[in-house]
Amino acid sequence: MDPTADTPSDFPSPPWDRVAIIGVGLLGGSLGLALKARRLCRQVVGIGRNMQRLEEAIGQGAIDIGSTDLPSGVAGCQWVVVCTPIQQIAAHVLEAAKAAPHAMITDVGSTKESLVRQLASFPDLRFVGSHPMAGSEKSGCQHGSAQLFDRRLVFVTPSPATPKTWTVEVRKFWESVGAQSIAIDPDQHDLCVAQVSHLPHLIASALATSTDPHWIPMAASGWSSTTRVAAGDPALWTQILMENRTPVLQATRKFATILQAWVDALESGDGEKIEQLLEAGKQSRDALGNRHPSS
Amino acid sequence: MDPTADTPSDFPSPPWDRVAIIGVGLLGGSLGLALKARRLCRQVVGIGRNMQRLEEAIGQGAIDIGSTDLPSGVAGCQWVVVCTPIQQIAAHVLEAAKAAPHAMITDVGSTKESLVRQLASFPDLRFVGSHPMAGSEKSGCQHGSAQLFDRRLVFVTPSPATPKTWTVEVRKFWESVGAQSIAIDPDQHDLCVAQVSHLPHLIASALATSTDPHWIPMAASGWSSTTRVAAGDPALWTQILMENRTPVLQATRKFATILQAWVDALESGDGEKIEQLLEAGKQSRDALGNRHPSS
Repeated sequence: MDPTADTPSDFPSPPWDRVAIIGVGLLGGSLGLALKARRLCRQVVGIGRNMQRLEEAIGQGAIDIGSTDLPSGVAGCQWVVVCTPIQQIAAHVLEAAKAAPHAMITDVGSTKESLVRQLASFPDLRFVGSHPMAGSEKSGCQHGSAQLFDRRLVFVTPSPATPKTWTVEVRKFWESVGAQSIAIDPDQHDLCVAQVSHLPHLIASALATSTDPHWIPMAASGWSSTTRVAAGDPALWTQILMENRTPVLQATRKFATILQAWVDALESGDGEKIEQLLEAGKQSRDALGNRHPSS
Repeated sequence: MDPTADTPSDFPSPPWDRVAIIGVGLLGGSLGLALKARRLCRQVVGIGRNMQRLEEAIGQGAIDIGSTDLPSGVAGCQWVVVCTPIQQIAAHVLEAAKAAPHAMITDVGSTKESLVRQLASFPDLRFVGSHPMAGSEKSGCQHGSAQLFDRRLVFVTPSPATPKTWTVEVRKFWESVGAQSIAIDPDQHDLCVAQVSHLPHLIASALATSTDPHWIPMAASGWSSTTRVAAGDPALWTQILMENRTPVLQATRKFATILQAWVDALESGDGEKIEQLLEAGKQSRDALGNRHPSS
């Protein structure tokens, strides 16, 4: 593929005429709200399986029209954003590309290497993967917000064959709804999110489970923060963790090594070692700075 | 000791004339601010090693006068609240009791069994241990707040020999600054906080350390919440964890068992087991309800 085949100039600037969102949940609904709040497109088309839920999304102002038929929903759209569960994304991208061959297609899936590799065998696909680091332990369009992407990081994950101009367009798309964007290799992305998102979820869940139920009413803000994400949807997170199983396992093993150092230090009553472990944790946590003061 | 020796009626009700706070850090300073904001006493005496810091605490309105001499500072006080690091509390309680034999003495130490056992051999001591489940990853009086104890839980930990009326007075004291209180055996307290406070700290620290430094800038709210408490003071937390080493080790081993179930499920790619683990974590986290919505 010729990287100059699509120059930025051949792709329309906002406001776009039509943007399709496949899967109008928390992320899809928030994207619709953001596109409309910022007047970035004339019409947001929501595509889903359940007409009643699409009508609720229309009522919430997240989409303008709803369709349960993917091909007719995406027809004539400049953008298609696939916000369905990770295991359905590839099929939805391919179906959308057939019905809207001139649309730029992206997605919001939490893992990227397997998806990008699967789709790389379709060279004409105008697809670049994305992963917005935005979400909530709540799910559903009713918890959506036009501000969900504000200052949040969106990973954009081109394959080696992706024209640079497409990557630029997808980054501009996310920045237009308030996000910051970064381009990263799909496999590096998966290693990164295993550490900064998937392992914390697993750990929060294990920690919540380890607490005796009769002590939970005594918990204060420390337990509350440390376990917060464990309230997330188990079915959704099972898909994410299964999809990114190898990097998550690697991250979990590294964590287990550090945990063993803790057990050893506690067993031997080695206060100096405990303080070293705590210093290392503090140094790492302090490196985040105040980027998420409300969390 | 005769449990009726001190009836509630022989102990003055607020506003008290003088309350001494030994150790004017985050908790001690916040207590001073709360006592003054609620006009619960005429004069708050701050006792510390460093006169300059005490003067800063006066400037912040946390205390009225400062003293680096414990005996003269506590003299004539109705209440003495020991807010020094855990390993100094017993000595400070004994020193205060000698200089202010009519004062009711309590503390804010994070572990209770060892302290209460040590002090139980002094039968005339008007002491009942406390542990407010309030704090912050920040330390120092300058981060104090008159609202720090609002609706927070304070454990009050009588020994079997403690007169019931004293326990009542100490609970009333904490409730007067906005807290909720509960009486609990010191050893049960230590098991509880190992699970709901100390283990979360250890886990947050280990998780922060396990993250490759170059991925930390990509972290979103999940990592941020899950590791938040790891920013706490390592020296302070070393003391807490060393003091409560046995229950913490027990809680850590239980956590490690659950982590091993995670490793097994990931290794074998057992999605059903992963979903079960996540469901258990969600059920436990959801049991907290919305008690700490901002965390």
